[in-house]
Amino acid sequence: MFIKVPKGTQDILPEDILKWYHIEDMIKEILNKYGYKEIRTPYFEYTDLFIRGIGESTDIVTKEMFTFPDRKGRSLTLRPEGTAPVVRAYLENRMDRISKVIKLFYLGPMFRCEKPQAGRFRQFNQFGIEVIGTKSSAADAEVILTVLDVYKKLGLKNLEILINSVGCKKCRVDYVQKLKKYLKDKKDFLCSECKERYNKNPLRVLDCKKDSCKKIIEIAPVITENLCQECESHFSEVKSYLNDQKIVFHEDPRLIRGLDYYTKTAFEIISGGLGAQNAIGGGGRYDDLVEELGGKPTPAVGFAAGIERMIIAIDQQKIKWPVEKGLDIFVAKVNEKNKDTAFRLLQKIRNTGLSADMDYSEGSLKSQMRIANKIGARYAVIVGEEELSKNMVIFRNMQTKEQKEIKIDNIIDELSL
Amino acid sequence: MFIKVPKGTQDILPEDILKWYHIEDMIKEILNKYGYKEIRTPYFEYTDLFIRGIGESTDIVTKEMFTFPDRKGRSLTLRPEGTAPVVRAYLENRMDRISKVIKLFYLGPMFRCEKPQAGRFRQFNQFGIEVIGTKSSAADAEVILTVLDVYKKLGLKNLEILINSVGCKKCRVDYVQKLKKYLKDKKDFLCSECKERYNKNPLRVLDCKKDSCKKIIEIAPVITENLCQECESHFSEVKSYLNDQKIVFHEDPRLIRGLDYYTKTAFEIISGGLGAQNAIGGGGRYDDLVEELGGKPTPAVGFAAGIERMIIAIDQQKIKWPVEKGLDIFVAKVNEKNKDTAFRLLQKIRNTGLSADMDYSEGSLKSQMRIANKIGARYAVIVGEEELSKNMVIFRNMQTKEQKEIKIDNIIDELSL
Repeated sequence: MFIKVPKGTQDILPEDILKWYHIEDMIKEILNKYGYKEIRTPYFEYTDLFIRGIGESTDIVTKEMFTFPDRKGRSLTLRPEGTAPVVRAYLENRMDRISKVIKLFYLGPMFRCEKPQAGRFRQFNQFGIEVIGTKSSAADAEVILTVLDVYKKLGLKNLEILINSVGCKKCRVDYVQKLKKYLKDKKDFLCSECKERYNKNPLRVLDCKKDSCKKIIEIAPVITENLCQECESHFSEVKSYLNDQKIVFHEDPRLIRGLDYYTKTAFEIISGGLGAQNAIGGGGRYDDLVEELGGKPTPAVGFAAGIERMIIAIDQQKIKWPVEKGLDIFVAKVNEKNKDTAFRLLQKIRNTGLSADMDYSEGSLKSQMRIANKIGARYAVIVGEEELSKNMVIFRNMQTKEQKEIKIDNIIDELSL
Repeated sequence: MFIKVPKGTQDILPEDILKWYHIEDMIKEILNKYGYKEIRTPYFEYTDLFIRGIGESTDIVTKEMFTFPDRKGRSLTLRPEGTAPVVRAYLENRMDRISKVIKLFYLGPMFRCEKPQAGRFRQFNQFGIEVIGTKSSAADAEVILTVLDVYKKLGLKNLEILINSVGCKKCRVDYVQKLKKYLKDKKDFLCSECKERYNKNPLRVLDCKKDSCKKIIEIAPVITENLCQECESHFSEVKSYLNDQKIVFHEDPRLIRGLDYYTKTAFEIISGGLGAQNAIGGGGRYDDLVEELGGKPTPAVGFAAGIERMIIAIDQQKIKWPVEKGLDIFVAKVNEKNKDTAFRLLQKIRNTGLSADMDYSEGSLKSQMRIANKIGARYAVIVGEEELSKNMVIFRNMQTKEQKEIKIDNIIDELSL
């Protein structure tokens, strides 16, 4: 009996790896163009970081974390998201001393112990950007534009942008009171989870996906009608920057995100045809998080997108992936006796910088040619008894099937053609 | 109080990321040249995989694994090494059907809950290669040559190659008997761990780093004098391939590695000046592992190297890292009123494919120029009231400090120079 890959996770196999290279290279290229630099934080953190950072009553913290002890029994958690670790690293490494505004990106795995379903994995990959140290609405707009540029360069079309403001510490308190008041006499009709949310964190009710709760939420008071002056004008500035850049977006006053740290701008990018898990990315401003994690008050804004969902969306939109460049040379041997000469030749070819391989399975010449074809080799060098006695090998163009005898000593010259 | 990075782990900061890009790109380039394709397995596996794969009495399994339950209570473990997961993926995805010999590589984090010390981290990165499906001694040689090529292209010098054969299921049983017999009357002088090893897995005694045990091991019978005919000739073939390629190596008959799965060839690559943790990579043949994990008998050979130690070795040998290419354009504004125009210009420049940024912190022009210098911008575009009224901006060469007024509409032409 084989041991299987853990439930909710998947192997990325060699036949799919080019897709990942393509997306990862594109992300790095675009983010560098926008002035972001990569940071890599460990894949686990002290559990406290996420409880304080993401919020005690979020789904992530209450039921989706992989948690385990270190040698001394201190609780560690596989990172379920990238922002809290980046802010931890920002504070620990005193990055505020480098520059007032710091622009970082990350690219790597996140872990959530969710029920596996289409488009949801327990280990999944995200890229994310964080602009730390500015309250400027232009930064919010930049974050959205950056992400859209990544999607665009990957060829993704028909993306819908949802945008909202979830207010700040000040105006949100008033709104939550209003929302609670509205929900009070409807409490019995809420789902059991939302009943709890009503007490602990009523804003989370807006995020419920259950139909019964959705109906109640539909006519609830909206946060955008309850913003303070500062949040209001920040929100309209962000929208005006986007309009100026001819970006079409929709306001969704019920959009809050699954993390407690957002303030002011919140946004989500939707790709049609992804089914229930149609968000391919989202983000927003988090002006209080740095302070909550022990730093000075420091405004910030960011974004994260799931790579697996981007791949699904690209496949659904039938966008072509780059094709694999085959091997340059396959070295074949007529029989096993010529193995050592073949190996020597193989290393000689590789040392010129060309990619080359041979078959280590003692297969027949025919089977070796099959392998050469399968791996897309452009040329084959065939080492045979008869030719060797004349210091020659057979040089075969795998596409045209033309072949000729060449001197072993000339093989490198021949290959540079 | 800040929350710190977990003990034994580290952040890879933007100022160091280029080192990682350099090494990772080099690894991918060389491994592709040798015909290896990347596979990415999840960062955790069912714990069983490592117990069965690595060996119950190894240090890794007995004391270094990070283990935690999934939702249903099944035990998961962060991968402490890459070979067992690759073999799991090989079996689960029936890769034997694709080709008789499969060549894979991986590149990513491993996790061991060790006592942190110089060069040892609880999350560290490895690249590794695996050739699955061949018993050919040429494959053993290729693995060693591949790795040496990676080190060479990175500029590493003065590497020492240690090589040994640890025999096969057959001849090792006899050797272990002999070793046990030798150790029997010296048991009292072994360390407490080795006393246990003596009972559970006497071969592991050879791996003990304690001086008292080392002395006893020094004159113990060696495995290479007890190899069966097949292992003997396999070992001399490997050595002959290496000699043929002018590779200098040392035989170390006491070299066994920290994992139970090795058979026949075992090797290690040492870089002077790394202190106690001087091995920068190692590997060997593991002809029984595929079968032990539930597959058909399938010979295989592989290698793994720690990236952090490669970086330390490169720094110690004072090898130059590639230098960062600065930003193309920094857009500055004379005052905040010109912010929107500056932002519009910034996006226009980015849309041409150039890298560009501005300052979102409302700093003075002087402070903006400081930032532009710090991030190594080649040019600055300065947006000022006076020039704007004429539809002009100032275009400044940050190196020569020369500047001139140019028409906004001509800015893209100017930049393409």
